[in-house]
Amino acid sequence: MKLSNNVMSMQFSPIRKFNGYAFDAKKKGKKVYHLNIGQPDISTPPAFLEAVKNFDETVLAYAESGGDTKLIEAVIQYFNRFGAKIETEDILITNGGSEALQMVFSCILDPGDQVMMAEPFYTNYHTFIAAAGGEIAPITTTAEEGYFYADPVKLEKAYTENCKAIAIVNPGNPTGCTLSEADIQVICDFAVKHDLWIVADEVYREFVYDGGKMNTFAKYPAIADRLIIVDSVSKRFSACGARVGFVLTKNKDMQDGLMKIAQGRLCCPTLEMLGAAALYELPGEYFNETRTEYEQRRDCVYRELMKIPGIVCQKPGGAFYIMAKLPVESTDDFLVWLLTEFDDGGETVMYAPAEGFYATPGLGKSEIRIAYILKQEDLVRAIELIRLGLEKYKAEGHR
Amino acid sequence: MKLSNNVMSMQFSPIRKFNGYAFDAKKKGKKVYHLNIGQPDISTPPAFLEAVKNFDETVLAYAESGGDTKLIEAVIQYFNRFGAKIETEDILITNGGSEALQMVFSCILDPGDQVMMAEPFYTNYHTFIAAAGGEIAPITTTAEEGYFYADPVKLEKAYTENCKAIAIVNPGNPTGCTLSEADIQVICDFAVKHDLWIVADEVYREFVYDGGKMNTFAKYPAIADRLIIVDSVSKRFSACGARVGFVLTKNKDMQDGLMKIAQGRLCCPTLEMLGAAALYELPGEYFNETRTEYEQRRDCVYRELMKIPGIVCQKPGGAFYIMAKLPVESTDDFLVWLLTEFDDGGETVMYAPAEGFYATPGLGKSEIRIAYILKQEDLVRAIELIRLGLEKYKAEGHR
Repeated sequence: MKLSNNVMSMQFSPIRKFNGYAFDAKKKGKKVYHLNIGQPDISTPPAFLEAVKNFDETVLAYAESGGDTKLIEAVIQYFNRFGAKIETEDILITNGGSEALQMVFSCILDPGDQVMMAEPFYTNYHTFIAAAGGEIAPITTTAEEGYFYADPVKLEKAYTENCKAIAIVNPGNPTGCTLSEADIQVICDFAVKHDLWIVADEVYREFVYDGGKMNTFAKYPAIADRLIIVDSVSKRFSACGARVGFVLTKNKDMQDGLMKIAQGRLCCPTLEMLGAAALYELPGEYFNETRTEYEQRRDCVYRELMKIPGIVCQKPGGAFYIMAKLPVESTDDFLVWLLTEFDDGGETVMYAPAEGFYATPGLGKSEIRIAYILKQEDLVRAIELIRLGLEKYKAEGHR
Repeated sequence: MKLSNNVMSMQFSPIRKFNGYAFDAKKKGKKVYHLNIGQPDISTPPAFLEAVKNFDETVLAYAESGGDTKLIEAVIQYFNRFGAKIETEDILITNGGSEALQMVFSCILDPGDQVMMAEPFYTNYHTFIAAAGGEIAPITTTAEEGYFYADPVKLEKAYTENCKAIAIVNPGNPTGCTLSEADIQVICDFAVKHDLWIVADEVYREFVYDGGKMNTFAKYPAIADRLIIVDSVSKRFSACGARVGFVLTKNKDMQDGLMKIAQGRLCCPTLEMLGAAALYELPGEYFNETRTEYEQRRDCVYRELMKIPGIVCQKPGGAFYIMAKLPVESTDDFLVWLLTEFDDGGETVMYAPAEGFYATPGLGKSEIRIAYILKQEDLVRAIELIRLGLEKYKAEGHR
């Protein structure tokens, strides 16, 4: 008895794999500032729980495989704001954006197939793509150039004959990169040229700063037949624990493929879909306050990071992550040291080491991802702890 | 752009694929008795929604990937009733039994690998196994012998070199077959002999009639290292819409493989896990009333079915399904006719045609699965509608 090659080739989540060290640090009485996971501290709108509490049927029954009609309708109304015309059959509700991505790659990939994707990328793409027997064809980007990837030369360089899709996270996790209209056009043209599916992960759609425009690939009719949008309530409404997402596609074959998988797992939880429908019914103004808060946090984190000698870091335009290159050889080793050896007044800090965000071996070892999901005073202290930690780490002779 | 071979080889749910006909029939004012889906009409215990309503955190945050500690603890206590000693790390909470099965087969199967399974089987196994690139090696059983499969000769005949696992649903869906202690021993010995994983789907564990003993493969230490139990709250607590299940295994490699996939999809919904924990805390007596109700329904359905001339049907010992062979060439065609051409006083009936429950081409075309999830007077009427329909169908010259 052995495990499948697919599962053997998967990795444990690099974001979660150091949790044991953090757990031990806390057991010893240390306070740990968590910058490692995209769990916002913003309150979930009360509308969610109110809708759940209003459920009054005596049997909590199976829902439709494609999702609750009320939620689908609310999602369609939400897309109207962006000028995208969506039909009921275009939407399939999923258990978070995660299940959406699992389903999509299962529909696209046969063993050996590849998905183009800018690296560093959200690390769980490794898992979703490997589960379908595929692999990532990385579009390599660097800290020095702000992780920009929408460049025809870079795209052509990364392309192989085995590529079936290009996956875009916009605004980006972990880089915070945002695409302009022109950037999107570059990607659309490239996908058409090579006959690729476009998997557009837009879960951070509202998190665009500096007056930048919110956008969606759903607005570009020329690629409508090859477009698969993945989305989620997790970040948009600070409702990560709801696990409600969706896939949006106008490609009929893809709709059929997704529905086969969806019917296999029967349906999503009824109560969570009721709650999510209430979230999508919130007015568009809901996002303004949250956006302002995150923009201020981004500015704060960036300002504090720039005080660290030797750091390489560009100010990102969206999402709520920032990547940084630290003057150490291994941010894995530095993190373990921070959690086990270091404290300043009983406090330490945790980030996500970035090696697991790369497909190309050897890249990302000196980089970290920070999720700026804490209030500003905590962010200031957390970045200070990285700075103080670095000073001590270097002084102890670590490299 | 095309879809993956895996998804192309999958089928739409044969249980759900006739829903459009039923929808149209209802739109025309017909009443449709649904015997086609295992959605119980028993009330979900109020403890579920009470626990959900008591949630009082301001942020609905990600849960642990392996599941909520309170729920895992409640599951462990529940297993104590069966004399099975389960540890925290043995349990991984999933989005229903469906996700549990997807994960398990993804951990076991490489393309071309096979899973032994009695046919007819719960049709979504097709989807779960195909999604992992595998296929079913069917242990063929028949209506005439009550769909019994725990026979060394039958098992050896179905075995191939590509088999990596044997999957058992006990009590059985769709057959209602239950395994005796001796039957379980036959399967355990066979799995050890051929070094197979045992995937034991025990979601109907409590639904055993005629004074039969509830059982679990978790009680057999000789196979502990090759055992993977899949379970769910859906049927046990009439909470299908909660989508809470779990995998139980003591095999450390399997635990690691499952956790990799679980971390990829982050976690299950927090609120549903709180509700499910409250369900598992219900006293063991909770099941007695439900069991009695279903046993009476089974007797009722069987009695009514036996009034149909030419039917082949054995009284099953568990779950809440009964398979029957009707004197028609195609139960698919007969069902479409029932929904589109037939009514008796404005009423008709829907069952699940059984062809999709078989892996061997050509089998099951004359068989149906009935879920006895309606109250007895409705069951009597529903079976009467099948009988009246059959008379008219034959009288019209259909075969």
